Amino acid sequence: MTYQFTYFMPTQIVFGPGTLRELAHLDLPGEKALIVTSSGKSMKTLGYLDRVRAYLKERKIESVVFDKIIPNPISDHVEEGAQVARENQCDFVIGLGGGSSIDSAKSIAVMAKNPGEYWDYIVGGSGQGKEVKNGALPIVAITTTAGTGTEADPWTVITHSDTQEKIGFGCQYTFPTLSIVDPELMRSVPPQWTAYQGMDAFFHAVEGYLANVHQPASDVHALDAVRRITQFLSVAVNDGQNLQARTEVAWANTAAGIVESLSSCISHHSMEHAASAYHPELPHGAGLISLSVPYFTFMASKSPNRFIALAEAMGEKVEGNEMEQAYAFITGLKKLIQKIGMEHLRLADFGVQKEEAERLAHNARETMGGLFHVDPYPLSHEEVVSLYEACFD
Amino acid sequence: MTYQFTYFMPTQIVFGPGTLRELAHLDLPGEKALIVTSSGKSMKTLGYLDRVRAYLKERKIESVVFDKIIPNPISDHVEEGAQVARENQCDFVIGLGGGSSIDSAKSIAVMAKNPGEYWDYIVGGSGQGKEVKNGALPIVAITTTAGTGTEADPWTVITHSDTQEKIGFGCQYTFPTLSIVDPELMRSVPPQWTAYQGMDAFFHAVEGYLANVHQPASDVHALDAVRRITQFLSVAVNDGQNLQARTEVAWANTAAGIVESLSSCISHHSMEHAASAYHPELPHGAGLISLSVPYFTFMASKSPNRFIALAEAMGEKVEGNEMEQAYAFITGLKKLIQKIGMEHLRLADFGVQKEEAERLAHNARETMGGLFHVDPYPLSHEEVVSLYEACFD
Repeated sequence: MTYQFTYFMPTQIVFGPGTLRELAHLDLPGEKALIVTSSGKSMKTLGYLDRVRAYLKERKIESVVFDKIIPNPISDHVEEGAQVARENQCDFVIGLGGGSSIDSAKSIAVMAKNPGEYWDYIVGGSGQGKEVKNGALPIVAITTTAGTGTEADPWTVITHSDTQEKIGFGCQYTFPTLSIVDPELMRSVPPQWTAYQGMDAFFHAVEGYLANVHQPASDVHALDAVRRITQFLSVAVNDGQNLQARTEVAWANTAAGIVESLSSCISHHSMEHAASAYHPELPHGAGLISLSVPYFTFMASKSPNRFIALAEAMGEKVEGNEMEQAYAFITGLKKLIQKIGMEHLRLADFGVQKEEAERLAHNARETMGGLFHVDPYPLSHEEVVSLYEACFD
Repeated sequence: MTYQFTYFMPTQIVFGPGTLRELAHLDLPGEKALIVTSSGKSMKTLGYLDRVRAYLKERKIESVVFDKIIPNPISDHVEEGAQVARENQCDFVIGLGGGSSIDSAKSIAVMAKNPGEYWDYIVGGSGQGKEVKNGALPIVAITTTAGTGTEADPWTVITHSDTQEKIGFGCQYTFPTLSIVDPELMRSVPPQWTAYQGMDAFFHAVEGYLANVHQPASDVHALDAVRRITQFLSVAVNDGQNLQARTEVAWANTAAGIVESLSSCISHHSMEHAASAYHPELPHGAGLISLSVPYFTFMASKSPNRFIALAEAMGEKVEGNEMEQAYAFITGLKKLIQKIGMEHLRLADFGVQKEEAERLAHNARETMGGLFHVDPYPLSHEEVVSLYEACFD
């Protein structure tokens, strides 16, 4: 180890069952909050939104609710939310919910303080790559799912409302100032979504471990997250009320978020973004699971070395030559997918067709091409097309 | 795992051989720096101070040098340095050197913005425990040793100039904004000091792993640091020019600093502080090494559980019953001390006498009593006395 890297993950994370109520005491970065949350009913029917507003009110912090966020959130809502923040003179933003709400909160925090349209600041695709000159409103993340790791990283993934572009964006201003990760709130997530989200976290860890920009700190968190998810995700899927399993998966997800801050996802994520940009009904985690076996089998065949520690973290026996040891990870991956009941999942179930492979391969590289540069093995366009096609065999 | 904890380590760490020159490009938190460094000659004769000033000058950042810091730095110098900062209207502080210089820089940064004397803000001993109301100047740490981990934690250890009190202090303002860890700068550290400092880092990791306030993120960094130090410290001691070993030990030390931010040292550190407060010629690392075998043998006998993973991280064979598995750590510790040539080190070599045991046990609890509360097994006063006395057997 003689390389150079930068370690930076400035978010304060308050973690553990029951920590939502800390909102009544913790230092908060403002006096009037825009609460960004989903257009769905769950935050209201579960009482989470009311609890958040009540804790704020107790300490005389005003709040305004913007509750239009949809799964695979869109840029129109970012711009609209930013306008609501400005009109109401909110001085910080709270993202409450899953990745869609928190990512939207981050993007709204940027647009509340910067002129123009959101896509002006996006790097990749038709984004203009402008500098975020005025910073952003401080961001508080309250996560009710264990999937994106967004509470511990600067990334926000938004889909352009008019084009098929689903692009990740982040800068120093989009790290949450404070994140509250309360596994009690996650007990209401249904089994299927627990599985999708948990596997998203799993792939953040795996990809961050494989990326050629990994660093010692991302390595230790990645292996820890892989170990916890292998051990506890199926428990959380099968018994959502199991608070120990929820807590283990929640930390694994947050740790995988730290991995995303310090290292990077690889092209597996770019390929999924392309698929769900064209098929918004495809959940991100489902797309990742569907792509994963062909993708990682091919990657392991080309660059086996770092798969071995991943296999060990999954509790797989690692023996034989280097390639056999690396493939032990694929064995572990297949077992994990089976344990969470996702072995029959296919891209075709969500309307993706084999004939789209060429178009998706282009979109993946056009919109999230950066991740291809950190792959352990550089994929050609033809190889990406083949990997999509392999999902239909 | 169902407990609650807070994760917070906001420092940006630029790590790797050659990174000192990044000082010419990185975002810095001010326009006029107070450079706090040692009264010794090394920062000047090695050219490090000139390089730092030149990089700053290149980008038109002025600097003033305060070079009075001694090993086991004292509160008089903190107050004097703060006055120099105020008089020269410095808007940030750079600590350049080992733990003494960087810790002093942190404390100076606090006193440059707050009234009264430094000990007014200290918690423990004769400290007044006042609130740090005005924050602190931003702190940049440039570390030339691998020992204290201060570049990745909020802690600063200062000895009162008039009393025998050596007390750690830290708050949200004393995390460095930016730390540069360039292992090239560490090649000049002599073998004996490489050993002392490396073992300080080792014990930060070990103690942070054992402390009852450990958390998942401190655990993974602690085991990683223990593994790297076991493997590479003796290489760095025996061949100071070996950049790979210097780099591994440097990261282990920084990782152990992260451990100190997230978890805590235990009473082993309190006991050493008492000894070197009365005997300032006792280097901190030498004190820790001298106390360690009796201390950890007793702790393992009382609370074996978490010693097992530490033994494994040291590459020791872990077999037999729980107690035997735990004692494998003691075997590893003795081997490590021998590999770095420190097996004959005794407190008596530095003027400490067996008759002081009672007084030291009192001082340890009076000044750094907090650490006794996070011990895996709560030590009685008599047990602390016995542990000191055992160092003279």
